[in-house]
Amino acid sequence: MTRLYDKVALIGLGLIASSMAHAMRRHGLAGEIAGHARTAETRKAALEIGIVDSVHETAADAVTGADLVVLAVPVGAMADVAQEIGPHLKPGCTITDVGSVKQAVIDAVAPHLPAGIHFVPGHPLAGTEHSGPYSGFATLFENRWWLITPLPDSAAEPTARLRALCEAMGANVEEMDAAHHDLVLAVVSHTPHLIAYTMVGVADHLRRVQQSEVIKYSASGFRDFTRIAASDPTMWRDVFLTNKEATLDILGRFTEELFVLQRAIRMGDGDKLFEYFTRTRAIRRGIIEAGQDTAAPDFGRGKAG
Amino acid sequence: MTRLYDKVALIGLGLIASSMAHAMRRHGLAGEIAGHARTAETRKAALEIGIVDSVHETAADAVTGADLVVLAVPVGAMADVAQEIGPHLKPGCTITDVGSVKQAVIDAVAPHLPAGIHFVPGHPLAGTEHSGPYSGFATLFENRWWLITPLPDSAAEPTARLRALCEAMGANVEEMDAAHHDLVLAVVSHTPHLIAYTMVGVADHLRRVQQSEVIKYSASGFRDFTRIAASDPTMWRDVFLTNKEATLDILGRFTEELFVLQRAIRMGDGDKLFEYFTRTRAIRRGIIEAGQDTAAPDFGRGKAG
Repeated sequence: MTRLYDKVALIGLGLIASSMAHAMRRHGLAGEIAGHARTAETRKAALEIGIVDSVHETAADAVTGADLVVLAVPVGAMADVAQEIGPHLKPGCTITDVGSVKQAVIDAVAPHLPAGIHFVPGHPLAGTEHSGPYSGFATLFENRWWLITPLPDSAAEPTARLRALCEAMGANVEEMDAAHHDLVLAVVSHTPHLIAYTMVGVADHLRRVQQSEVIKYSASGFRDFTRIAASDPTMWRDVFLTNKEATLDILGRFTEELFVLQRAIRMGDGDKLFEYFTRTRAIRRGIIEAGQDTAAPDFGRGKAG
Repeated sequence: MTRLYDKVALIGLGLIASSMAHAMRRHGLAGEIAGHARTAETRKAALEIGIVDSVHETAADAVTGADLVVLAVPVGAMADVAQEIGPHLKPGCTITDVGSVKQAVIDAVAPHLPAGIHFVPGHPLAGTEHSGPYSGFATLFENRWWLITPLPDSAAEPTARLRALCEAMGANVEEMDAAHHDLVLAVVSHTPHLIAYTMVGVADHLRRVQQSEVIKYSASGFRDFTRIAASDPTMWRDVFLTNKEATLDILGRFTEELFVLQRAIRMGDGDKLFEYFTRTRAIRRGIIEAGQDTAAPDFGRGKAG
């Protein structure tokens, strides 16, 4: 592979950033990788793993001379980081982020960037339930989407180069505008996560059913929910605070639908339930056909009455 | 393995019954297996796969001379089947079922059974999102729970023998009373399924986000939901109609909790969200420690912002 950037600075060294470091090293995409993390423990870990060439106590230090700066911190921390690094950015460099929400990141970061800096926001739809520098691996982005939301005045070359980087790490890249990104993600990710968190919370509260039983008999429905609900709390807090409108919109539709089904259960309206459950099957087929999952039996993890 | 029953009759030849047939054959647990399914197509398939020795157009025919009768039909069909086979059951035989709800099955089946028949209701917590005779496989029950809910007057020997059968197919067996079973399942399976169906239905309705995009970018939250929401519609309709009270109870708690989180989002109460999301992580850890799932990174299927 061709080197795409002479120096990359990773601000934040969690799952996404450490996976990018692994992938960039494996494919020779960056000449040098500098990293910054808030805690000394994380900085030490990144050096030990060997995914960065240097670590820096401040983000400002890390970005010095970098051709590409990646903001890989929780969405709520983006504004402070941008303010800190703004004056230290190399003229003409590209800056991107990996936040799960795009409009809020643009609002937080753009005002702090000097003229001549190319800001190209991005969001890799990839991850695991684990976090921290040790959770990264080089193939995390393979065959995953990486959504890029260029600004109206984004220059063509920096956007194309960032795209090439994502593709070289194995991702499929699509461009869209930030507001549309935020609505799509509210449907396919943010609201499902909130619901999963809620269901797991209900089980936790329940006194009549012992928690040990909930865990012991966690059939697929609930087990999948707990997997989702084990994701990084800071990241998800920030997602909901910063994609508030779209999430509340989808949540409103969700409770409306839920009440319709709840009423059908109460009234014993089997036809309505059957019709609804039949319709949702079609979407699943679409996802399998689109190659986003497989139809292989999910041994021991499937439906379980 | 020792043969446990000379003749087993499987009423219904879907995922669970065909998996039982595979498993009983592999371990030599039944001398002869007779099967009944409503459609000629399914009966033909079961013969072709070779999982049964004979198929019968009526359930009454299939149970003739059987030492164990397994009702593996949707919960809503149990009463009719029980009424039909009651007069044809071999005196002293054992009858069980695999329904996802237990009290409703007991109410539907018990009144139709002659004296001297041993009814031991059961529920294997195993399955995939697929259904029909071709979806079965011998290892479906391995290391899965099989809950048995004996009646107050159940005899010890028939219960112990059924237990031995389940264990020989690889399951871990626990006994509990029917009402408790139904509440536990409402928490760990039934309500999560209804929620997943609802969320997938919301996405289906959504006009601003094209369906193709929902499918294309289905990040883990939503993708896991569609997997759950692809389960057999007839089975799930019956689950909700027959475990109505417990499901409505848990649903009520769920919407209460959801409104608390929704309000926290609206008010921008990040502390509440963070505290909630931190607490739900602990339950996930419990499930991993209990061996019901693994902590291995779920490549490409985990959280995805």
